[in-house]
Amino acid sequence: MKIDVLSLFPSMFDGVFGESILKKAQEKNAVELNVVNFREYSTNKHQNVDDYPYGGGAGMVLTPQPIFDAVEKLTETAKKPRVVLLCPQGERYTQAKAEELAAEEHLIFICGHYEGYDERIREQLVTDEISIGDYVLTGGELGAMVVIDSVVRLLPDVLGNNHSAVQDSHSTGLLEHPHYTRPADFRGLTVPEVLMSGNHKKIEQWRQKESLKRTLLRRPDMLEKMELTEEQKKLVAQLKEENQLS
Amino acid sequence: MKIDVLSLFPSMFDGVFGESILKKAQEKNAVELNVVNFREYSTNKHQNVDDYPYGGGAGMVLTPQPIFDAVEKLTETAKKPRVVLLCPQGERYTQAKAEELAAEEHLIFICGHYEGYDERIREQLVTDEISIGDYVLTGGELGAMVVIDSVVRLLPDVLGNNHSAVQDSHSTGLLEHPHYTRPADFRGLTVPEVLMSGNHKKIEQWRQKESLKRTLLRRPDMLEKMELTEEQKKLVAQLKEENQLS
Repeated sequence: MKIDVLSLFPSMFDGVFGESILKKAQEKNAVELNVVNFREYSTNKHQNVDDYPYGGGAGMVLTPQPIFDAVEKLTETAKKPRVVLLCPQGERYTQAKAEELAAEEHLIFICGHYEGYDERIREQLVTDEISIGDYVLTGGELGAMVVIDSVVRLLPDVLGNNHSAVQDSHSTGLLEHPHYTRPADFRGLTVPEVLMSGNHKKIEQWRQKESLKRTLLRRPDMLEKMELTEEQKKLVAQLKEENQLS
Repeated sequence: MKIDVLSLFPSMFDGVFGESILKKAQEKNAVELNVVNFREYSTNKHQNVDDYPYGGGAGMVLTPQPIFDAVEKLTETAKKPRVVLLCPQGERYTQAKAEELAAEEHLIFICGHYEGYDERIREQLVTDEISIGDYVLTGGELGAMVVIDSVVRLLPDVLGNNHSAVQDSHSTGLLEHPHYTRPADFRGLTVPEVLMSGNHKKIEQWRQKESLKRTLLRRPDMLEKMELTEEQKKLVAQLKEENQLS
């Protein structure tokens, strides 16, 4: 996979692209990551990339020319890539979208910073508008890093078996059950006995129930979207009674 | 504000903490950012920080000792800080939570990476479990950066007036209307005439309607949560008719 990022703050990506999974994925040639300062594409004599909004108002707006030219340069030879715009108006990012993007050969991310985007960028150039959540960030860069991390870890050979994702909550549809490791007694805080029983069936049952319980108490919306097995349905009914939920 | 981050990959933060708003906020002494590798606190002779899960299963679990010791060292003199754990099981992060955290004096973020967290860390040390969205990331680091960016930009004197946030969609409750800047004609794509009319009342009406329209079409859930003015209600009814929505 090839990923290009357009940003006015390219060095923001150094730490995240140079460590951990994204570093390893590049070393294994699973992904090629390239950050482009789109100011370099400005044909304006001052290399400006933004201008005042038509109709007045606060804030600046990214002008179409440098971004159109950068995207066109990056797609000269390739088949049409997905062009992702990070913005609060975008569709809410989900694991399903990560899986969809992971099937592509080429992704381009456009990151604004402070500024709004000229609407013609959205209309003509962008294939996907994505928001990583309902909160305000300074720019699109962190959103791009989040999407890139979540996509690249899904590419073949990127995650070793050692990292078999303990935290894959959003892949199973349920929140993870609690985990415990040594010591069995830490400052008087002990590990549930069942986990040290060696009884694998009971351990599995405990985990299943704790996982359902955590999801029921913290994210009932996730539970509503799932198709539960008969056994899970029984456990949910039992948990509701125990926790006095209707 | 003082912010400490516990991570096994401290250099992941270099780019994001060294640029843009987070850089400026540190220069202005609005925030002190400190990244700690909690491996340094491990009393284990190999400086291990994780171990196999009790009860078996794939993946490793972060052991309590280094994290407890690091948090206690960082809070020796201070009044009790908020201790934030980034995890998929956490409450969904929102702008309201950002505002809540921005009122604190001291935040500590705990970032796991691949591993699960020993449950005793959650139970005894952590005050807030946060998830930035329903997707799987390699570690808590990107989540911490997202929360820190969204919190620090709310601190007094951090955002200049120049950056008066064009994209503050999630502060107003509505998605932003479209923006346009020069040129008025870019490759035959033109700017809506009203924006060049100089009629401020009409411009305001157009923006209000476009903002409602975008929210209605893309994020009806946001509209449902809002208290609309009488004028907004009329516009919504009109938009529903125009877009054949029930």
